[in-house]
Amino acid sequence: MEKPLILVTNDDGINAPGIRKLIHLMNQLGEVYVVAPDKPQSGMGHAVTINSTLQCESVVVDEGEQKEFYCSGTPADCVKIAIDQIMPRKPDLCVSGINHGSNSSVNVLYSGTMSAAVEAGINSIPAIGFSLCDFHYDADFDASSDYILSIAKNVLENKLPEGIVLNVNIPKATKQEIKGVKVCRQARANWIEEFDKRIDPRGRQYYWLTGEFVNMDSGDDTDEYALENNYISVVPVQFDLTAHHFLSQLKNWNL
Amino acid sequence: MEKPLILVTNDDGINAPGIRKLIHLMNQLGEVYVVAPDKPQSGMGHAVTINSTLQCESVVVDEGEQKEFYCSGTPADCVKIAIDQIMPRKPDLCVSGINHGSNSSVNVLYSGTMSAAVEAGINSIPAIGFSLCDFHYDADFDASSDYILSIAKNVLENKLPEGIVLNVNIPKATKQEIKGVKVCRQARANWIEEFDKRIDPRGRQYYWLTGEFVNMDSGDDTDEYALENNYISVVPVQFDLTAHHFLSQLKNWNL
Repeated sequence: MEKPLILVTNDDGINAPGIRKLIHLMNQLGEVYVVAPDKPQSGMGHAVTINSTLQCESVVVDEGEQKEFYCSGTPADCVKIAIDQIMPRKPDLCVSGINHGSNSSVNVLYSGTMSAAVEAGINSIPAIGFSLCDFHYDADFDASSDYILSIAKNVLENKLPEGIVLNVNIPKATKQEIKGVKVCRQARANWIEEFDKRIDPRGRQYYWLTGEFVNMDSGDDTDEYALENNYISVVPVQFDLTAHHFLSQLKNWNL
Repeated sequence: MEKPLILVTNDDGINAPGIRKLIHLMNQLGEVYVVAPDKPQSGMGHAVTINSTLQCESVVVDEGEQKEFYCSGTPADCVKIAIDQIMPRKPDLCVSGINHGSNSSVNVLYSGTMSAAVEAGINSIPAIGFSLCDFHYDADFDASSDYILSIAKNVLENKLPEGIVLNVNIPKATKQEIKGVKVCRQARANWIEEFDKRIDPRGRQYYWLTGEFVNMDSGDDTDEYALENNYISVVPVQFDLTAHHFLSQLKNWNL
């Protein structure tokens, strides 16, 4: 049987430890192409490069059977150019990550990691975003290896319905502490912004975006609940954003 | 009665004709604050600025009662900083646009215009993104004025359910040609990428992202169908991305 063709990307950049780990794992499952940003692209959401040009070149980052390419664009750009220019055929799977930091609940909207997965999904490629709830450069990406392999194998075997990708978040925990996998819904949570206002050396005001993450959702079926209890959360994410349940009511408005 | 407080933003930048028109219209409905990017931010999706600083300063662009601020960040940044730093209280309405170009169907994911509206929605502010299906700088932003006012008034009066914002797209048509408003679902459509590969003056390869928009949806209840038939499309957009209909099936997987 032909080996599955797997696209690996991320938003922390091609040199980040998280993607190096993911490449290593995917080499066990198929033929791996890496097309990833040449620099960190965290918080890029689903940005695409339409008003400037892109570079995309072959590169050797470290040993392994994968073929690697850096791209000067966003995570969504990486997936687009991988499909159109780099890969020999449409991949059987796209995995994005392992992100350094959580992409649970509302963070899915800001996440370059998840936007890469969604971009693959738009192109009818089964896709998964993996994120570890630990921002540190030397975070423990090994604890969840068996789960990542299992989830990826499941998606290769079962595929995913058209219009759905998976958002997988991994708690900051040791292998022994991780209790298993929970299929969840996205928690209702958000960031309460508190901009940090400062004065630059030239006397001009500037701001740092900071904020506090607030979970307003008391459900025990959410990704936040799963992560707090040391489960790996798996949320099926759709990109038909229509609020179908509000259509009939909205039709009664006098627009 | 106190005048409603309205936040106006966009992704084409504070000087774009589309936002100038929207400011003019909103001045008829309430007290207007403008916090908009200092430069074009098209295709920025829901990007936020987390690894660098932001400037945000008062500016006078043209006459009118609005208070205006430019911001060096993305559309989502503009909404965040407007709420936390600029506005005297939480606004009663956020309108984003009028975008130069369509944000119908899958374009909602790439759209800075719509991400600004979603960001407002996350903060429980009723929000609408307006887009005109005409990229030209001198597009006709007058034809739809009455509809824009009517939709904004409706949202001010009825509010919107928690977790929903409106995506309004306006066909490229004269006032006489526009047939009215249709409440729609997001069409299943996407971009088939065709990167344009070139060689720079130094002999290096580079790419322009181009592509063809393909509507794969034959439904007559979609935004694409409405726009093709000279209706203004209104799609209620949610930001709980959970594919609730797939949860029970996914729970049967052996993850």
